[in-house]
Amino acid sequence: MENQSSGKKIIKPQTLKGFRDFLPADANARNLIIQKIRKTFELYGFEPLETPALEYADTLLGKYGSEADKLLYLFNDRGGRKVGLRYDQTVPLSRVIAQYPQIPRLFKRYQIQPVWRADNTQKGRYREFVQCDIDIVGTEAELADAEIISCTLNTFNELGITQRIVWLNDRTIFDNLGFTKQEIIILDKLEKIGDQAVIEELKKMGRKNAAEIFTLLKNTQPTPRIKKIFTALEKEGFSEKKDFLFVPYMARGLDYYTSTIFEVKVESYTSSSLAGGGRYDKLIGQFTGNDIPAVGIAFGFDRLVDVILENNLISIGKTPSKVLVTVFNPEYEINSLDIATQLRKSSINTEIYLDPLAKLDRQLKYADQKDIPFVVVLGPDEVQKNVVQLKNMREKTQREITVEELVKILKT
Amino acid sequence: MENQSSGKKIIKPQTLKGFRDFLPADANARNLIIQKIRKTFELYGFEPLETPALEYADTLLGKYGSEADKLLYLFNDRGGRKVGLRYDQTVPLSRVIAQYPQIPRLFKRYQIQPVWRADNTQKGRYREFVQCDIDIVGTEAELADAEIISCTLNTFNELGITQRIVWLNDRTIFDNLGFTKQEIIILDKLEKIGDQAVIEELKKMGRKNAAEIFTLLKNTQPTPRIKKIFTALEKEGFSEKKDFLFVPYMARGLDYYTSTIFEVKVESYTSSSLAGGGRYDKLIGQFTGNDIPAVGIAFGFDRLVDVILENNLISIGKTPSKVLVTVFNPEYEINSLDIATQLRKSSINTEIYLDPLAKLDRQLKYADQKDIPFVVVLGPDEVQKNVVQLKNMREKTQREITVEELVKILKT
Repeated sequence: MENQSSGKKIIKPQTLKGFRDFLPADANARNLIIQKIRKTFELYGFEPLETPALEYADTLLGKYGSEADKLLYLFNDRGGRKVGLRYDQTVPLSRVIAQYPQIPRLFKRYQIQPVWRADNTQKGRYREFVQCDIDIVGTEAELADAEIISCTLNTFNELGITQRIVWLNDRTIFDNLGFTKQEIIILDKLEKIGDQAVIEELKKMGRKNAAEIFTLLKNTQPTPRIKKIFTALEKEGFSEKKDFLFVPYMARGLDYYTSTIFEVKVESYTSSSLAGGGRYDKLIGQFTGNDIPAVGIAFGFDRLVDVILENNLISIGKTPSKVLVTVFNPEYEINSLDIATQLRKSSINTEIYLDPLAKLDRQLKYADQKDIPFVVVLGPDEVQKNVVQLKNMREKTQREITVEELVKILKT
Repeated sequence: MENQSSGKKIIKPQTLKGFRDFLPADANARNLIIQKIRKTFELYGFEPLETPALEYADTLLGKYGSEADKLLYLFNDRGGRKVGLRYDQTVPLSRVIAQYPQIPRLFKRYQIQPVWRADNTQKGRYREFVQCDIDIVGTEAELADAEIISCTLNTFNELGITQRIVWLNDRTIFDNLGFTKQEIIILDKLEKIGDQAVIEELKKMGRKNAAEIFTLLKNTQPTPRIKKIFTALEKEGFSEKKDFLFVPYMARGLDYYTSTIFEVKVESYTSSSLAGGGRYDKLIGQFTGNDIPAVGIAFGFDRLVDVILENNLISIGKTPSKVLVTVFNPEYEINSLDIATQLRKSSINTEIYLDPLAKLDRQLKYADQKDIPFVVVLGPDEVQKNVVQLKNMREKTQREITVEELVKILKT
């Protein structure tokens, strides 16, 4: 980790495998996308919630299934407590519901925070990633499931991902057909391995009537719950096959789902699902002792960002800065500062170049590299005439204008 | 941790000491305050940066001083790597500068993320809290120091904290007077223990001319760097004593500061400093091998939020929701959904009550508890007449209006 070079100890600058820095252009895109997501969540009446990065290990263990437990970041803190990093936002929500009596019986919340999983990074997975969750606690109403799906569809629309579809299923279908947990895991692989392979695997597990029961499953009709959800979604202007689809073989891994489950597919851009969730009517009871119904979805934020940026689905600049004010030399620094101050007073995002000895050429290159759309240049002539030169970096044009005109142009 | 009650294993819902949940009213306030901070940072041309929660322990250790090292959350990950949770945002910034050659030589960034410190919670300190940092890397220009302070002052203004003042000092003053590290720690206690106690402690450390050197320190004039910073700040409309003050005995604990140091005081509300920073021209060199000058400040976000909320400095509602649409009964649920959908299409944050069997009284109480300003009521009469009842929950008034009028009123 450390190199000895010229007698000075240098620490190698590196990030941990599966962890990423987001430099300004990416961080700026992430901020703008989170703003859009937050706006849509709030449009549907979801309120924000924040929970700590660290939880007691007991809060986390055994909720996600034994495979997932192996992916938890667990350690002993300085007080000897066994603690773990947040793995998702559903278990912390369940803990919160049990912990605070002042929370209304009906509770709609959104949560946008990072989660940590010690996953295999070779699969292109990250160990730190952001989840965006919406959940409705305290009601079994089908309208709650419909609200989650409607909000999800509109969030994708807001992000320019209009080619999305929500797949729905109801886990009670598996129970009614007598599928075991192990068999459900096989069903979940259908899209990857195909019908025939699924039937073979079911046979290997000891199912004699594998082909028949598989056909039965594929021809299952939507449950009354799914039908009611569809009616609500249609009332809101969404339609089957374009916006939502019943997929009786879809399973989803997590242990805690009890009824409706859903996934968002965006097949024109990616094969993986960009959001997933369902109804978990028994999870909160592990903290309260009494079951409290709940339904929700988690968006995989990082994959969403990738899809949006790779396909240019919304227009996002590389920087929030609108203009760079250059500095002619140390003597004229104060004149440049004066212009910058006036622009900022008019709410224009303004940078001033902070090395008064740098040549103009270097300052322009800097603006170019950061993709700042406008540059203001002023030297002795401009100061004397009380004007500035405004460069439009994209159109590669330049004009001499007064400071009042400058403010007016950059405000628009 | 676990209780056996009625044969069912219940996990006690609890947070770790020093860690907090933020329920919706608080989380909403935090979001709004972060938006204002971000807006001002971007006004000054700072761009966002995000770094991982976990870093190699080597990256963190030995940067903050040996006392601080004891507060690091360190552990071995599943791959046996020694890792630690982010302690501040300055050391990760320094690592980033060394790691990415594509970062411009001049670099202005802001960063708003949680940090973790295994501190003594009895002092009212938290173990997880958010820092808001701005830093300028790659220039020794005094204007850079002035930009940090100007942006800080304006951020406080934007947050309604206009009674703030930045205390400045220059660490080279201590060096010139021959103060040791241990002595500087004593000087830093001056405000708490008073002049005489400081002189006594200096004597105990072996300083014979303690009283004389202390008087010399208190009468020290601003360094040329501080003077230039003041000139720039005055040019921007700030003034000495009201907005900034030279305080030659102010020290600040962290090891890595090399010259200018500053703290924001808001004495009418709190005795502790709400933001602090300075120039650290040698820290990045620990990663790059060559010194790169830098200056910055960190805002203690959680204390800022407390000051704003306790003193009602900006108006913040408890919820982002504007209106609750009630549901008369299951049969009329679809009519309420229709109204909610129309309001949302007009960008009005709308909640629909998700238990169609609940009495109207309960639904109104819910709106009241959450402080939702408007409630829409509709039953068979209203549906027949194609109108709704709009309740203004604050003014305790009600009127019958058409849906078009409803949208118009709630839009404003």
